[in-house]
Amino acid sequence: MRATVIHAPRDIRVEDVPTPHLSSGRDAIVRVVAACVCGSDLWPYRGVTPTESAHRIGHEFVGVVESIGDDVALVSPGDFVIAPFYVCDNTCANCRNGVSTSCLNGGWWGSEDREGGFADGGQGEFVRVPLADGTLTVVEGPVADSEIPGLLTLSDVMGTGHHAAVSAGVQPGDAVAVVGDGAVGLCAIIAAHRLGATTIIAMSRHPERQALAREFGATHVVSERGDEGVERVRELTGGIGADRVLECVGTKESMDQALRSTRPGGMVGYVGVPNGGPELPVQAMFGRNVGVNGGVAPVRGYIAELLPDVRSGKIMPGKVFDLVLPLEEAPEAYAAMDERRATKVMLKLGL
Amino acid sequence: MRATVIHAPRDIRVEDVPTPHLSSGRDAIVRVVAACVCGSDLWPYRGVTPTESAHRIGHEFVGVVESIGDDVALVSPGDFVIAPFYVCDNTCANCRNGVSTSCLNGGWWGSEDREGGFADGGQGEFVRVPLADGTLTVVEGPVADSEIPGLLTLSDVMGTGHHAAVSAGVQPGDAVAVVGDGAVGLCAIIAAHRLGATTIIAMSRHPERQALAREFGATHVVSERGDEGVERVRELTGGIGADRVLECVGTKESMDQALRSTRPGGMVGYVGVPNGGPELPVQAMFGRNVGVNGGVAPVRGYIAELLPDVRSGKIMPGKVFDLVLPLEEAPEAYAAMDERRATKVMLKLGL
Repeated sequence: MRATVIHAPRDIRVEDVPTPHLSSGRDAIVRVVAACVCGSDLWPYRGVTPTESAHRIGHEFVGVVESIGDDVALVSPGDFVIAPFYVCDNTCANCRNGVSTSCLNGGWWGSEDREGGFADGGQGEFVRVPLADGTLTVVEGPVADSEIPGLLTLSDVMGTGHHAAVSAGVQPGDAVAVVGDGAVGLCAIIAAHRLGATTIIAMSRHPERQALAREFGATHVVSERGDEGVERVRELTGGIGADRVLECVGTKESMDQALRSTRPGGMVGYVGVPNGGPELPVQAMFGRNVGVNGGVAPVRGYIAELLPDVRSGKIMPGKVFDLVLPLEEAPEAYAAMDERRATKVMLKLGL
Repeated sequence: MRATVIHAPRDIRVEDVPTPHLSSGRDAIVRVVAACVCGSDLWPYRGVTPTESAHRIGHEFVGVVESIGDDVALVSPGDFVIAPFYVCDNTCANCRNGVSTSCLNGGWWGSEDREGGFADGGQGEFVRVPLADGTLTVVEGPVADSEIPGLLTLSDVMGTGHHAAVSAGVQPGDAVAVVGDGAVGLCAIIAAHRLGATTIIAMSRHPERQALAREFGATHVVSERGDEGVERVRELTGGIGADRVLECVGTKESMDQALRSTRPGGMVGYVGVPNGGPELPVQAMFGRNVGVNGGVAPVRGYIAELLPDVRSGKIMPGKVFDLVLPLEEAPEAYAAMDERRATKVMLKLGL
């Protein structure tokens, strides 16, 4: 089959790789309908994180189940399924606590699973899915082609934006600022709006993303950064800062912006993967009682809550996809996101 | 009047200082009934934080109102009052948000207030209290001598322990670990028990404090630290770590212990004043979804909730005082706490 492989920074190729096969009783083979490129995929692409040797890449996909192992009970061949960006059993203590990203038996796409099989990367024609009952969520058919973008966001960005809002403790009536106008930041705006925030400040400098932010529920746009950005947020929040700030970038600068834009006693919900390990300034947090909560988003557990709103059109996170390409053009998908010509690129293989 | 002055590390003196007088319409003069030494007072005592020049010290006291300014409406001469460890108006936006330690008009004992008057330090015979209506909480009389220790803990340590538990989000049924067996840590155990935690792990190496911890509600005591301490907490919590960990020390080591003892998706509530500015390891927090929330405790806002339980004897935080001395022996009070001969020392002046 064909799948995407990263060889080195800026060297993404679509190649022939072994077609996966069932290797345990609990796995499934899924034919990929659509996949996408994640902001975090850009880190090895840009060389921010090293690529020691060529390996498969990708971790967001939806598809149709082709075959299942003998011990799989909850998904069947022909089912349309959403995969989160990780593997989980959905039954261990951490999964039951809502933290399926810390599943005691889980794993990550593009690597060996715990039983010695390979879990493909998602940006390819097929994927072997370990722990299929836990990992996959079935979408009741029929699924229309027009639904695919929205469903695909539940594999990562919509659930991740929601996790930022949940981690920050967004409540009805809150003033929320969102740092980051990528796909996750835009989905965090949707989430804050959905949870009842009444002031939603999008921190964005890109006109197209500002427009989408407003469409998703942002009440204000702040294009300034640094001290000026903090000051603008304070002006919009009675002089004290936002109740909740959603940090959706992952750099030292963005976290600093988030912490300083939060009012005393407020909370930063963060989902931007910390890039290079910025550390948190605990003394500044302590003095103002600004908390930090979040992390790698356990999106598997959010699908059941968000799916009805996506299918009904109440929320439309699929709009974050502003470029759709065939699998063979994965290199261009990476380039378009790297160069910020696209917010989020879908690789579409078809229903 | 007589009051405590720090001149240099380990040089605490009780000296004659000017008796305070009313200097604005909103202040009050309080005759101190009892004061105490805070763990944070030990930092200048030990030279961890510098003492540039001799200055008044102390910030926890209860007393009786002597006189009030013309604009004071909520306290009257003769009232028994509890002062939190800071000054606040209890009406500004931050106070209304429950963060009176960030009061827009507030201040700190032992320093000038915003109207140019001096707010005494508490470890003395009298204190000028700025913003008396906001700062002071009246305790309905009569107040018995035996009640003084419990009431005095509401000026800081009991409210601070409670803040750790509230910031961590302690819920009924939670497994909670408490790092630190000083007065605040012991009060955090009371708070966790009061909020319904069913497993409460006290991390302590001192037999007397272990005994008090158990009396306050600890179900387990862990004397190990570092990797072994983390392992012991995990053994007691189904292998995954505590739902909530209350960090009541403020060192890099104690925060590390707290973060690593927390289960994925759990929260550290921290109230230990960060000593020397340890920074938080955000990548480790991110991967496990361990949040950090807390800070300088807004105890003023907790007095109304905690006072009835203190007066009824439902909680007995006054037991943290294991040494009572007259004001003139303040130097010995500091030495006893510094040398860990006492957990918490009360300076008693009398009703």
